[in-house]
Order: sequence, then structure tokens, then C-alpha cells
Amino acid sequence: MIETPYLLFLGDAPDQLAAKVAQGIKDWRPENAVGQFRLPGCGADVGLKDLSLAEAQAAGAKTLVIGVANRGGYISAAWKAVLIEALEMGFDLASGLHNLLRDEGDLVAAAQTHGGTVHDVRVPTVWYPIANGEKRTGKRCLAVGTDCSVGKMYTALAMDAEMQKRGMNTSFRATGQTGILITGQGVPLDAVIADFMAGAVEYLTPNNDDDHWDHIEGQGSLFHVSYSGVTMALLHGGQPDALILAHEPTRNHMRGLPGYDLPSLEELRDTALPLARVSNPACQVVGVSVNTQHLSDDEALSYLAEVEARMGIPAVDPFRQGAARLVDALATL
Amino acid sequence: MIETPYLLFLGDAPDQLAAKVAQGIKDWRPENAVGQFRLPGCGADVGLKDLSLAEAQAAGAKTLVIGVANRGGYISAAWKAVLIEALEMGFDLASGLHNLLRDEGDLVAAAQTHGGTVHDVRVPTVWYPIANGEKRTGKRCLAVGTDCSVGKMYTALAMDAEMQKRGMNTSFRATGQTGILITGQGVPLDAVIADFMAGAVEYLTPNNDDDHWDHIEGQGSLFHVSYSGVTMALLHGGQPDALILAHEPTRNHMRGLPGYDLPSLEELRDTALPLARVSNPACQVVGVSVNTQHLSDDEALSYLAEVEARMGIPAVDPFRQGAARLVDALATL
Repeated sequence: MIETPYLLFLGDAPDQLAAKVAQGIKDWRPENAVGQFRLPGCGADVGLKDLSLAEAQAAGAKTLVIGVANRGGYISAAWKAVLIEALEMGFDLASGLHNLLRDEGDLVAAAQTHGGTVHDVRVPTVWYPIANGEKRTGKRCLAVGTDCSVGKMYTALAMDAEMQKRGMNTSFRATGQTGILITGQGVPLDAVIADFMAGAVEYLTPNNDDDHWDHIEGQGSLFHVSYSGVTMALLHGGQPDALILAHEPTRNHMRGLPGYDLPSLEELRDTALPLARVSNPACQVVGVSVNTQHLSDDEALSYLAEVEARMGIPAVDPFRQGAARLVDALATL
Repeated sequence: MIETPYLLFLGDAPDQLAAKVAQGIKDWRPENAVGQFRLPGCGADVGLKDLSLAEAQAAGAKTLVIGVANRGGYISAAWKAVLIEALEMGFDLASGLHNLLRDEGDLVAAAQTHGGTVHDVRVPTVWYPIANGEKRTGKRCLAVGTDCSVGKMYTALAMDAEMQKRGMNTSFRATGQTGILITGQGVPLDAVIADFMAGAVEYLTPNNDDDHWDHIEGQGSLFHVSYSGVTMALLHGGQPDALILAHEPTRNHMRGLPGYDLPSLEELRDTALPLARVSNPACQVVGVSVNTQHLSDDEALSYLAEVEARMGIPAVDPFRQGAARLVDALATL
């Protein structure tokens, strides 16, 4: 668990997109961030107050979170100077970068000297158990996609936020580094050893109140040959009561796999639901979440209406329309 | 790759079952073993000549293979003495034990001093790529099970052996520690990091001659919630042309999961085949392999006849009947 609140390090991000982790924290857990820290030339701004390390510490910040992708796959001297100063002042560090902070000797030395913790959220810190398949109390919702990167995390965060707004009993359960940095905890599922994947999902979504919903962050796709095993572990470890079908309608082929067509929403439903029912026979497909960012308003509305009529369940773009109708659909379970 | 031939270390195995790795090597790759090494009180005998380390070395043995499970999860002083002597004499060591040889300081020191290699086959030694899904040349066969431990490895080894006997172009592709020790190479798939599982299977089964068959060792089951992600990676990384359905008809529930019923062979077929066709649209289910060890001869024959009539494809127990009819079934592809 990463200590909150954070100061968000944007560094010298070339553009807004490079700071999507920081933006995600600002959008979904604004109470977790006291401000942003930018270096000269930074091209990103997530709309928080620019604070120095000292100002952030005075405002209560416990952890400096790397909220930006790094260029060239190494940690520059300009970044390093800030990170070491932060450790010297008593901050912890948290990062989802591919190159690990723990591999940087000077950062490790500074953390040891000053008693700080360095979190590399891409690396599991727990020995997860092998899944036991025992039925757990509480409810769970999982988005499964026709492809990778179609909005599964966004859907889960939006449903969790809508439930919070309604005063319902809800948790977002992160399974990837962005989600883990947003909420301060979770399981980096794609870095877990094969035998323990489903057990890690069970660990992440334990017994809970009967009216509590876990919104489990989805990963990969049953139809994406590179990552389908991870998706399968989510279906079987997560014991979902509800599935949301997630789709991006303008893809020409599966992400990164030019020879592979996307499945239809019907194929996704008819594949995912029987598999989900192995671990939870009561599972239902309750809605469709469409990422319509590449469609105009009119195109989006007409596409959503067509899908909803065809599939017989609510079809919404939670970014454009909010997740209210998806949350409503859970009420029947 | 582990250097052959081996001397098989049976240690103080309490019974024959404890030596199943050694037995597997003797049964499937007898040319890989010059003899067996037993300690006083050993209750196992795989039917090879008892050799001292010196005799085995004179007979050409390069590697001492731990062919037995250890008691209590630690490596005893009696074992250690033999393993160190073997390293001092220039042997390599190979082990599939849960506790790793590389974690034993005295073994590592002896290996370094004498230039030997210590193989812990449960641990990947390769950085596998992420699967790219590109269609590969050559043919591949994969057994998928209604449950774990129903005879998938045996089926693949038996089909490979039958093809070898016929002079066909064939390889057994090991995905677990027993298979790796039998053949001296493979991928310990259950120990691979989630994101790289399917890529590891692609790596294991590369482009090959048009008439070459890979018999890929199956793992887990699509219906076993603890390990289904690994099975999925085999289906999508393996691009099988042929699936064999593997079953053990006397199970009351899924192995280790008291609350879970086994699927029918029809359910297995109807689940596995569409998933396999994501990566290989030409895939066919060609046969059923039944482990009838808990049935009498009459019961076995009548069960196999019933399954064959019901499923419309050959149903055999390769242990009792050989794998000839399963190999014949591949000829149609």
C-alpha cells in the first residue's frame, strides 16, 4: 500500500498524453494528490497547483508519484536530482515505469539512509496463493473486452465513482500499474507468475459485505492471443457476478496483431459468459461499454442505440454519458 | 538444454511413485539414461543398472538428474553428499524440485569450483517474448483436459513415440518439469510471468517442416479455475492444428476443488475448439484420450466404445492401447 496523499511528478513530460498516470490520479482520486511538480519545459498540466517538494510536504504529501512516462527508457539526471531530494526530505517514491527505481543504486542508497520506501508497482510484492475457487461473499463486476485497451479500466473506475456518488458500498480493484497508482494498492497481474494469477485475483477481491461491489480492472482480451491467459485468470479468480462487454468500434484489427480480426460483441458474450459461470454459475452479462472517442456525437449515439437494440442490454459510453445506466443494471443481480 | 546422457538419482525414495520423474525418463527416453543411483533404504527401482558415480561417468553420463521427490521439502545431508561429490567429479546437476539447488550455497560453490552447471528446471532461463500471433509453419497437436492430471503429458509422449516408430517427423515439446527432465529441454510454463506465457509457447514451437508435428505438453484445464490461464496461453500460443480431449472418467470433482464438477467431453470440445480457432482457424478436435487406470479391462473397453460412438472421433487409452489411432487421426489434417 502506497501512502497518500501524493505529490504528482510530471517531470519534463513532452505532452499531456505522457502524463496519463498523473491525469488518472487527478481525475479519479483527486483527494490523493496535493499538487503537481513540473520541471522546466514540461508540456503537461493536470490542473493541480504547482508545488515545490517543501510546499507539498507542508501540505501533507507522503509520496512522490512518477505520473509520467520516461523518454528513452532511462531515468535522467534531471529526474534523479528531484527523486533523491525527495527521499532526503522523507518522501516515499512510487513508480510504474518499466525500468525499476530499485535498480538505481543512488535511489536505493538514499531511501535506506532516510528511511523511505521505493514502490515499483510493476513488481508484485506479495507471494500470492494458488486459487482455491471457494465462493466468496460480496459482489464483483468485471469488464471483458473485444480487444486490449478498449476502456475496461475506465469503465470500472466510472462505475465505482457512480456508486460512491450514490453512497453505495464499492471498491475499485486495480490489476495494472496505472490503477495501482491511482488507488495506492492492487495487483500487477501481468507480472504475476502463471500458476498464481487466479490466486492473485482471489487475494485482491476477498470476502466482503453482501451489498459490496468490487469493480475489478480488466486486462487483455479472451480474443487477444498475447494476453488471453491473463483475462482467463480474471474470469476464474474474480468470480464475477456481472460482466460488462467493452468495445472500441473503429479498430481494424486486434491491437498489435495485424492478422487478427476483432470478435463481435455477441462472440465475446457467448465466449466469456460460459467461462465465467465455471467459477460463478450466477454470472450475467449486464451491459456494454463502448469507447466512442473516434466517433462524432451523432455517430456515437446512433451506434450505441444500435448495439443496445441488438444486444438487449444497456449500451453506453461512460466517458460521454457517465456510468449510471451500467450501475442501474447491476441492481437486478 | 541439459546435457545427456543422465545418471538417475533415486536417493532414498520411499516408494516407486516418488521416483516418477526417473521412471518417465526410463520409459520415454531410455537412451538418455545410463543407469540409476540409489541410497541405502531406497524403495524405488526403475529397472536400470545400479551404477556408482564413477561407473556412470565411465559409461558417458554427463548429468546427475534428481529423479525423485524429496521428503519434507529440504535436501538432506545424505543427498547433499552425493550431489557435491558428483559436481566434484565434473557432473552437471538437474532438478525439478520445488526447493532450488541454486539456493544451496555448498552446491553453488562446488559447481563454480568445478565448472559444473546446476539446472533448476522449474525456473525459466530465457526472457520469453510477448506472443506475436504470427502463423507458423509445421503442425502442432495439443491435448486439453476436462481436469488437471488426466494424462495430457502421457498422451503427447505416446503420440510422439508412435510417430518416431513410424519414422515420422515429430517432437515432444515439454511445458512442465517432468517433461523437461525427460527430454532435456522445454519451457516451465507455470513459472513464466503472465505477460509472456503465450510468447513462451510460441518460442517452444517455432516454424518447422510442413510435415513436422509438435506434440505440445498440455497444462491445467480451461475448467480448472486455479490454472485455466495457463491452458489458455497454450491454446493461443500453440496455434494447434489438432486438439486431443483428455479425460479421467472416475473423478468426482475437479482436482483440488471439491465444489467443482468436471465438464463433459462435449463441453470441453465446444469450449476449447472456438478458442483454439482464434489463433488457428483450421484447428480440429481429432480424438479422445481416456485415462482408464481405475477401470477394469471390460469397463475400459465399454467406456471407450461409448465415448467413441457419442463423440464421433477415436477414443483410446494410449497406456492400454497405444496411440496409433490418435496418430492415424492426424493424417486427415
